[in-house]
Amino acid sequence: MSKKVTPKSIDHSKWYTDIILKAELADYGPVKGTMVIKPYGYSIWTLIKESIDLKLKKTGHSNAYFPLFIPKSFLSKEAEHVEGFAKECAVITHHRLKTDPNSNDLIVDPDSKLEEEVIVRPTSETVIWSMYKKWIQSYRDLPILLNQWANVVRWEMRTRLFLRTTEFLWQEGHTAHSNEIEAKKEAIDILNLYKDVSENIMAIPVLTGIKSEAEKFAGAEITYCIESMMGDKKALQAGTSHYLGQNFAKAFDVKFQTKNNKEDYVYATSWGVSTRLIGSAIMVHGDDKGLRLPPKIAPHQIVIIPIGKSDDDVKKILNFFKEHIKNFKDSGLRVLIDDREDLSPGFKFNEWEMKGVPIRIEVGFRDLNNDQVTIARRDTNKKEVVSISKVNERIHNLIDEIQISLFEQALDFMNSNIFEVNSYEEFKKLMSENKGFIKCGWDGNSKTELIIKEETKATIRCIPFEQNIKNKKCIFSGKPAKFEVIFAKSY
Amino acid sequence: MSKKVTPKSIDHSKWYTDIILKAELADYGPVKGTMVIKPYGYSIWTLIKESIDLKLKKTGHSNAYFPLFIPKSFLSKEAEHVEGFAKECAVITHHRLKTDPNSNDLIVDPDSKLEEEVIVRPTSETVIWSMYKKWIQSYRDLPILLNQWANVVRWEMRTRLFLRTTEFLWQEGHTAHSNEIEAKKEAIDILNLYKDVSENIMAIPVLTGIKSEAEKFAGAEITYCIESMMGDKKALQAGTSHYLGQNFAKAFDVKFQTKNNKEDYVYATSWGVSTRLIGSAIMVHGDDKGLRLPPKIAPHQIVIIPIGKSDDDVKKILNFFKEHIKNFKDSGLRVLIDDREDLSPGFKFNEWEMKGVPIRIEVGFRDLNNDQVTIARRDTNKKEVVSISKVNERIHNLIDEIQISLFEQALDFMNSNIFEVNSYEEFKKLMSENKGFIKCGWDGNSKTELIIKEETKATIRCIPFEQNIKNKKCIFSGKPAKFEVIFAKSY
Repeated sequence: MSKKVTPKSIDHSKWYTDIILKAELADYGPVKGTMVIKPYGYSIWTLIKESIDLKLKKTGHSNAYFPLFIPKSFLSKEAEHVEGFAKECAVITHHRLKTDPNSNDLIVDPDSKLEEEVIVRPTSETVIWSMYKKWIQSYRDLPILLNQWANVVRWEMRTRLFLRTTEFLWQEGHTAHSNEIEAKKEAIDILNLYKDVSENIMAIPVLTGIKSEAEKFAGAEITYCIESMMGDKKALQAGTSHYLGQNFAKAFDVKFQTKNNKEDYVYATSWGVSTRLIGSAIMVHGDDKGLRLPPKIAPHQIVIIPIGKSDDDVKKILNFFKEHIKNFKDSGLRVLIDDREDLSPGFKFNEWEMKGVPIRIEVGFRDLNNDQVTIARRDTNKKEVVSISKVNERIHNLIDEIQISLFEQALDFMNSNIFEVNSYEEFKKLMSENKGFIKCGWDGNSKTELIIKEETKATIRCIPFEQNIKNKKCIFSGKPAKFEVIFAKSY
Repeated sequence: MSKKVTPKSIDHSKWYTDIILKAELADYGPVKGTMVIKPYGYSIWTLIKESIDLKLKKTGHSNAYFPLFIPKSFLSKEAEHVEGFAKECAVITHHRLKTDPNSNDLIVDPDSKLEEEVIVRPTSETVIWSMYKKWIQSYRDLPILLNQWANVVRWEMRTRLFLRTTEFLWQEGHTAHSNEIEAKKEAIDILNLYKDVSENIMAIPVLTGIKSEAEKFAGAEITYCIESMMGDKKALQAGTSHYLGQNFAKAFDVKFQTKNNKEDYVYATSWGVSTRLIGSAIMVHGDDKGLRLPPKIAPHQIVIIPIGKSDDDVKKILNFFKEHIKNFKDSGLRVLIDDREDLSPGFKFNEWEMKGVPIRIEVGFRDLNNDQVTIARRDTNKKEVVSISKVNERIHNLIDEIQISLFEQALDFMNSNIFEVNSYEEFKKLMSENKGFIKCGWDGNSKTELIIKEETKATIRCIPFEQNIKNKKCIFSGKPAKFEVIFAKSY
């Protein structure tokens, strides 16, 4: 396998897959549409996960674990929910295999047919609300602020590593409240938490807002979302937070006694982000040399490559640099020393560039004599020579600089590819040329949205919180705009 | 629901379930045999998990994630493996539901039948070795030391919370090596890691050894195990580590080029511990007041209960104690302040005793005036009054003392309930009275083992590493003993 990736400009989709395979982030699993997350990819996920988990705990959420299996009948309890998920459910019908006495093949034992089929959770609202029914009686039992880290399954026809796989890993929060205001606040607080993680941990700027009726979660009253722009100017829904109103409480008959001794249905939210985030990090930050990882999600923030002709040389170099390595580690930096033998420095440079390590430190014999090292930063691919006495300070500054620089590059890119248009002709032209996001007026009509989607493949990615519809008209119908919206093609 | 549990001595099984429900560790899921792990139970699991994860990383293992779904045909590739797992497989046969146009019911869409059925992983050897086939070509690719934290499914008929559920959470390690010695060393190193976690983190003493042919893992050459004694003197298999030889490499045709340019099949291990460990912690340490948690796996190591008549009193008390609470937290202790209003101190005492919090600190007005607090330890249920100037030191010592005292109580209990017997009559008598473990000679014959199992329900829990068969005879056949073994009834 060649060590180079297909250039982004030639084939974005192939470039994306090349990076995943060559940076050893993931591989294809044996069942169609499934994915193996390899150790390097899983380390990135772990860093994202830990950062979200910490923020959730700080805001009063606890982790729990609900079953993978859901009785088929649960799915039909909420009308829109079943509509949204029935088409892509893995269905378990039997619980035993046996050896066929005739053919000697392993077959499904017909005697093990289940009375009621079981589905593998595509999301856990139904199973969780069946439990909340048991746990909630009074306002004293509220709020419940639970989260789970889990795998879910949606039987997708067209899959792509990290972005859309039959099984994926995610967190799903499910909260229960005594009133609408508190539940809506929760949904928005979580949206802000997701924005914070995306922008400040993953260095990916996002637009925030609400989804149109056509795009909202099956079973939600309101879906809040964060949307980001990929390197090919398509949109990616990076996270959603739903205000579910009393829909699931009604579906599962979850009532509670209020402070005033009345009875009411419980108010709910649910929200999630998934391993899809790794896909967005690749597409937002990657270049033709491979991944570029923001330091906060980089499994190795610094790779140190000693350049010597013999083992003895390498030992001397590492010895010279020992104190600094210790300092890096003590201050919490994730440092890797690549002292593998039989591999050239050039090979190692390429490999760690492919894997997106933010900082590379090269230390050779010349450096040793001159009390200096060479530092290469992955965000700009630039090198600098730093005197050994200043290396510690420089590295710490660089970690911050690279985190910010990657965010700013992505922000500039997004901002310079959001266009306001004045006619539907212009809209269609921009979309056909994949120019980016379009901000325009919309009459609020689902039919308008559908026609635009059919004609241009663009959908409403979000209705931003900040609205300016004064004198604005719908880009399609020419009617007064009900909302200002963001249209884009999306993943 | 009464706040008291059924006494252990009256009905051990009911006592066990009572604790799980009343301490809010878990609940029953809607699909038969499934379990919901509630936040308190999940926090215990997280502490166990973190401790294992850290030790695995320190010994060179990385985490990865392999798919939940396995093609049915994979299972048949290893003859013993299929034998062991075919009988309890959740089988996915379809990937879509639809609304029946006649009945309006949600039904399985017959058009979505899968060409090949998919099973939900009961364990991941097959899917992982299908990937290792792609990843391993040369000795340079070895060893591979991977672990995954995942859910697995075994369709069990008789289930019990934590001990045996259709779905459970676990870690499963899967390693690949270039030779037998290294692979066997890995399997034993992991067994020692499990022993370390069980004894030093969970305060549960274990016996270690190997499994008999009848009891070993389906597909293993050797199964090493840790076995612990529950409060009812039954045995629980708490963790297993398997040397798989070349079985899975042969089943999936995973060969590698050796250093000497020859070809060989890869050598393997696999190993796992599960949420079952929580069940063992309950059964080893629990008493009639509820759980007793070793400090290292206690979500709250200390609960502070201010005893005042008004909010104002409570504020004053907490204020008085503020500095100490800060000190506890700063030194890494997990502290909870229970300042809930409208609940009596007695109610709170019972609740935290049920939940097994190792240390309770009571601070009332009298204490405030006397510069002292009352400390209650859950392991002995004893109280002591400590002067405020010494409370910090005392708490830190107590954390260690309780961890050790729980281990020693369990060790004494286990040691005093392992018996050596001289006749099969004596063996049967002890077993019928559920007296504990029996250490005796065995002729190594599987038939002997089977008859003993049928007649007494006892199985060979392990063949201890330390053997002393000089002049020993098989307890059943009277033939010279091939091994000294531990027999017990088990979970």
